Amino acid sequence: MANIKDIAKLAGVSVTTVSRVINGIPYVSDEKKEAVLRAMELTNYERNMNAVHLIKGKTNLIGVVVPSIKRPYFGLVIEGIAEEALKNNNNLVLIQTNYEEHRELEALKMLKLKQLDALIICSKISNWEIVEEYANYGSIIVFEDARGRSVSSIFVDHYKSCMEALTYLSGKSHRKVGCCLARKSGTSSKQRELAYRDYLHNMGEPFDPNYIFYDAIHFEDGEWIVQRLTAMHNPPTALLVTSDQVAAGILACCKEREIDVPSRLAIVGFDNQPIAKILNITTFEIPLMEIGRELFLRSISGGFFQKEIPVKLIERLTV
Amino acid sequence: MANIKDIAKLAGVSVTTVSRVINGIPYVSDEKKEAVLRAMELTNYERNMNAVHLIKGKTNLIGVVVPSIKRPYFGLVIEGIAEEALKNNNNLVLIQTNYEEHRELEALKMLKLKQLDALIICSKISNWEIVEEYANYGSIIVFEDARGRSVSSIFVDHYKSCMEALTYLSGKSHRKVGCCLARKSGTSSKQRELAYRDYLHNMGEPFDPNYIFYDAIHFEDGEWIVQRLTAMHNPPTALLVTSDQVAAGILACCKEREIDVPSRLAIVGFDNQPIAKILNITTFEIPLMEIGRELFLRSISGGFFQKEIPVKLIERLTV
Repeated sequence: MANIKDIAKLAGVSVTTVSRVINGIPYVSDEKKEAVLRAMELTNYERNMNAVHLIKGKTNLIGVVVPSIKRPYFGLVIEGIAEEALKNNNNLVLIQTNYEEHRELEALKMLKLKQLDALIICSKISNWEIVEEYANYGSIIVFEDARGRSVSSIFVDHYKSCMEALTYLSGKSHRKVGCCLARKSGTSSKQRELAYRDYLHNMGEPFDPNYIFYDAIHFEDGEWIVQRLTAMHNPPTALLVTSDQVAAGILACCKEREIDVPSRLAIVGFDNQPIAKILNITTFEIPLMEIGRELFLRSISGGFFQKEIPVKLIERLTV
Repeated sequence: MANIKDIAKLAGVSVTTVSRVINGIPYVSDEKKEAVLRAMELTNYERNMNAVHLIKGKTNLIGVVVPSIKRPYFGLVIEGIAEEALKNNNNLVLIQTNYEEHRELEALKMLKLKQLDALIICSKISNWEIVEEYANYGSIIVFEDARGRSVSSIFVDHYKSCMEALTYLSGKSHRKVGCCLARKSGTSSKQRELAYRDYLHNMGEPFDPNYIFYDAIHFEDGEWIVQRLTAMHNPPTALLVTSDQVAAGILACCKEREIDVPSRLAIVGFDNQPIAKILNITTFEIPLMEIGRELFLRSISGGFFQKEIPVKLIERLTV
């Protein structure tokens, strides 16, 4: 296998020049650079992938940061990203953070070290300042509301969409509305809870902490939610639910216990996942696949970009 | 930023020695190698990731080759892989092939070039000989029946499991059984079709090509399958279906058209996906999440390993 000295000899340049080309250091004339790259190709100098990536100009790897691919919400975004990655001949590096900041920092470092062409952050943990700093080194786009920040972003206004859903339920004469949320500390949960409290305040209704159900994330969570509901003296007549998966779980448990939906309990989901269509769940569509596709395309095209994605009411049979 | 010459000076060795260490060429004493690695760390020689990977001894990246993450079948396997990757501090490089061989070869090459610590192939395209050759360069495990081959493998015997399902339907007095399959050229489809033909032959029943439904892959495919069934003069009384997703699509269309399941049409799925539980579909469980988890763990532990995963009948309400 050729080493750097061989390359230098073949290209008719010094070892320092070769090293400069390999390490991306400037101060090499275009002519010499080309001679080095040609020598690398000729000698099949493939062991050092940085050299190959220098020749190609990029790695064709796009990083995707998610808490875990297990949540259907992120699963659909990743499906959209993966669809475009396939079309555009890119591979994906999946970095699951489990909400641990050091894992996200690792991904940001990979971008800085040019191991990735771009980075898509589906759910951010670090401070905005850190993300903004790394955005100087490569293309970053986040699936979070980054208004007022210098980071590209495609986002849903969860405050606005939650308010929209509550207004819809109010129009259907529901006064006692409960709210299922994901992690208490999550960005979207916080925005939705704020909307919920503001809504109650605007309506002159009291806030009842029992009407909030945190950590409602999976289908299986439907069970304890319905259990808590049935134990209440004054249960809500409608539930605004984290996602269609959780809504499906609640619906399944209501059926088992013969709680009629929607006459005794109205249910509104979010996302419009396939299961919502199958089970006829009324929901606010968040076009996650489409968002994933656009996140990918914007990540490779680079440049500053911010866009809000509106939600859309899909009326079915659970309200 | 330090270049190779700086490293050489600091380590008190020649540039050739540094290049040898970087490129993993032997003929360098352990003492000199350590001096070079130490110099690299001291000078923050981070641009060349191969150097960093040399220091760490690995990349912490595991490659996963799949046709596309969009099929729920592979989606669940990837979920299992991702779960263990998170626990073991590894990131995943997702290589979607869309059944194009050159994309799989790219993944194999990445393994050879040590860009990946191991490679998990969920659905193989290349000849076994090619995979066997690359297995010399790094850890490879396939989710395919590799018996008789020198490649590690965790697999389901699709011939055997299809035969088991047909025998079950026969025990329920079904003589006219149709069969929904994925891609005609797919390994598992071929095995299932062979079992189907052998089964009919053993039972002395004729083979009717109209009873086979190829390209039954997604929930949406339920629609044309039910359309074709209703247009038949002599339709099957039972369907053995590619996956629970497709079975769910068929079930949903039967409900719409008031075709009673199971009295007019019995339906058996495969996989035991969450949707099968929700819709009470009788299915043969393939523990895809568990398989994913084991694929990952075996891929990082390395060594030759082959294991057949049995399927398990889950009786619900569609037979």
